[in-house]
Amino acid sequence: MKFWDKFIGKKRVFLDCASSTPVLKEVEQEMAKFKSATFYNPSALYSEALSAKETLSLSRNKIANLISAQKNNIVFTSGGTESNNLAILGVFEAHKKDDFIPHFITTAIEHPAVLEVFKEIEKRGGEVTIVPVGIDGIVKPKDIKDSIKENTVLVSVMYANNEIGTIQPVNEIAKLIRDWRKNKNTKLPYLHTDACQAPSYLDMNVLRLGVDLMTVDGIKIYGPRGTGFLYVRDDVAISPIMFGGGQEKGLRSGTENIAGVVGLSKALEVVIKDREKESKRLEELRHYTIDSILNAFPTASLNGHKKNRLPNNINICFSSLDAEFAVIALDVIGVSASYSSSCRTLKEDSSSYVISNIGREECGMSSLRFTMGRDTKISDVDFLLKALKKVIK
Amino acid sequence: MKFWDKFIGKKRVFLDCASSTPVLKEVEQEMAKFKSATFYNPSALYSEALSAKETLSLSRNKIANLISAQKNNIVFTSGGTESNNLAILGVFEAHKKDDFIPHFITTAIEHPAVLEVFKEIEKRGGEVTIVPVGIDGIVKPKDIKDSIKENTVLVSVMYANNEIGTIQPVNEIAKLIRDWRKNKNTKLPYLHTDACQAPSYLDMNVLRLGVDLMTVDGIKIYGPRGTGFLYVRDDVAISPIMFGGGQEKGLRSGTENIAGVVGLSKALEVVIKDREKESKRLEELRHYTIDSILNAFPTASLNGHKKNRLPNNINICFSSLDAEFAVIALDVIGVSASYSSSCRTLKEDSSSYVISNIGREECGMSSLRFTMGRDTKISDVDFLLKALKKVIK
Repeated sequence: MKFWDKFIGKKRVFLDCASSTPVLKEVEQEMAKFKSATFYNPSALYSEALSAKETLSLSRNKIANLISAQKNNIVFTSGGTESNNLAILGVFEAHKKDDFIPHFITTAIEHPAVLEVFKEIEKRGGEVTIVPVGIDGIVKPKDIKDSIKENTVLVSVMYANNEIGTIQPVNEIAKLIRDWRKNKNTKLPYLHTDACQAPSYLDMNVLRLGVDLMTVDGIKIYGPRGTGFLYVRDDVAISPIMFGGGQEKGLRSGTENIAGVVGLSKALEVVIKDREKESKRLEELRHYTIDSILNAFPTASLNGHKKNRLPNNINICFSSLDAEFAVIALDVIGVSASYSSSCRTLKEDSSSYVISNIGREECGMSSLRFTMGRDTKISDVDFLLKALKKVIK
Repeated sequence: MKFWDKFIGKKRVFLDCASSTPVLKEVEQEMAKFKSATFYNPSALYSEALSAKETLSLSRNKIANLISAQKNNIVFTSGGTESNNLAILGVFEAHKKDDFIPHFITTAIEHPAVLEVFKEIEKRGGEVTIVPVGIDGIVKPKDIKDSIKENTVLVSVMYANNEIGTIQPVNEIAKLIRDWRKNKNTKLPYLHTDACQAPSYLDMNVLRLGVDLMTVDGIKIYGPRGTGFLYVRDDVAISPIMFGGGQEKGLRSGTENIAGVVGLSKALEVVIKDREKESKRLEELRHYTIDSILNAFPTASLNGHKKNRLPNNINICFSSLDAEFAVIALDVIGVSASYSSSCRTLKEDSSSYVISNIGREECGMSSLRFTMGRDTKISDVDFLLKALKKVIK
């Protein structure tokens, strides 16, 4: 492991929790506890399989309870990307007809796992409206409502943005959509939210939130990699995007990853249990960090709303900084940070479309994202501040 | 874990390895060894992420070497079902045009994760030819070749059947397809094989096998659940079925499950290393078991070819047996077996279409499948024989 050799004895401060979180000890312990039951194929009929089936059912129940859903509303997937694809492509495939072009509404700052799906929807003949967001990084519910048409089948608005952490008014949008549906006496459009960044910090009660579909990803909540689920309210017309053995009520074929599901349910339980305490702690740390950075760098500015953002998210525009260089320089000192999001670094143009799309084009390649987590302490932030002073003149 | 209480001190013989295999100790150890590197998002730029990226790359290289492929030919997925969906839907989406209807060829005994995808292909406007197989459970290469048309884009033939274990002449089919392509001076059709049941027992060298696409599933080779890959030969035109961050060269978006990939590559390494030895051992055990059962039950008969089948597969038709009842009765005694396949038990009609489709309709609901594995010993088989004598009068 040559990359790790150089870390021995060196302090590392990990500030990219929006990208990936380590698996919690409690999660590992839970997976170990149920290990013998998770090897088997729950569709078989012998005792080991029934034990696997029971374990799957317990985990499904736990997750349903945590978000105030019914267990038949939980569809296990391989992660956030698949959940988003299932929600959007699934609703498209269930509604497209020769004489009906389904229309979709989303925002300009969604994750690529939403925006790229909508590009595919357009290729497949669907219609997509992308609603802009303000310089605060928050979409206006009225703009969403004004975009609804007779053929709108789905509105997809993320719960909190992965780059700038701004919290979207999903609940208000849900109310406007319900009003529209009531007035028109229709079940459409549905409301989907990509809640990948939310569970540690925001209310995940789907009834209070008012969503019809919700994406959750294990890797963002200290759970196992390759796990996630899609909440699907009863009566939502949705087609599968993968076909086979008919698992997950036919919505997601493939032998269930029960070990993963056990870990995912435990991770969600832990982050929801600690939500209030952790949110309060990190909110204070976030204020301290933002104020300290802005004091130290007078030309720096915050991307996104100052208060209406995730407690763990700090995203700062440093005037005329080469963000890619800065991330590498910070790494050498011992800080793991990011510019735009991990997914963007795969693209040729790795500047942040989120920051550009809130009207701060000049900050697209000169912003740094620091996303804190359960292990982040004030000493880590102070270490970051010192590192920033070395890297940014 | 109430289901497990009753097992304490009781002998259990697990004979459903075609459905699911336990995770190998070597696999767990390898995952533990690389654990610190697998938490991070390999698309990020700091050292931990580079370490994750390096780990991913090492695993990809290992798998490529094991099957004589290049590392850019390996697309990691969430398992066999997803790999099959990607292969078939991906080739369909890449070739469909307003003035071109892609044609596909497959066999009547494929896994539901192939046959159900072809149902979807037909819904999306594609054309599918399902080639029958003989009573020996083996498709005739000439029947495949005779089905090829000018618009055929893909032939999908499983390497070995999951229910009756019969090994399909993939290599011969590959030669006929290559001849056709050469004669017609075209790159099409491609050849895909669902090799989920194969790695422990059959040659996985894609060059010798001559396939363009190949599905492998972690759960069938003592690897982690929720893992798998699709081999995609260079120059195969294929579209993604999930959209997002553009991971896996854009063919499979979603943050990589590196822990899973590490385990998957180790599992493949171990089963390929032990292939010859295990195949020989289990082949002898299979002969012994089949002969013993057929001797003990004179009206019983073997489903599928006697020799040209996986070393671990025993599938017997017991005249007028209620197979579902028998599986439950065997379980009470301590034997885990199956009738048809696990995936089929989810369907309302759980009789075996594989057994019906080899022309043995009368055996569709009266056959039992015993699939052995690395832990199966002769004493287990003797235990099975005793149990069968109690269950089947």
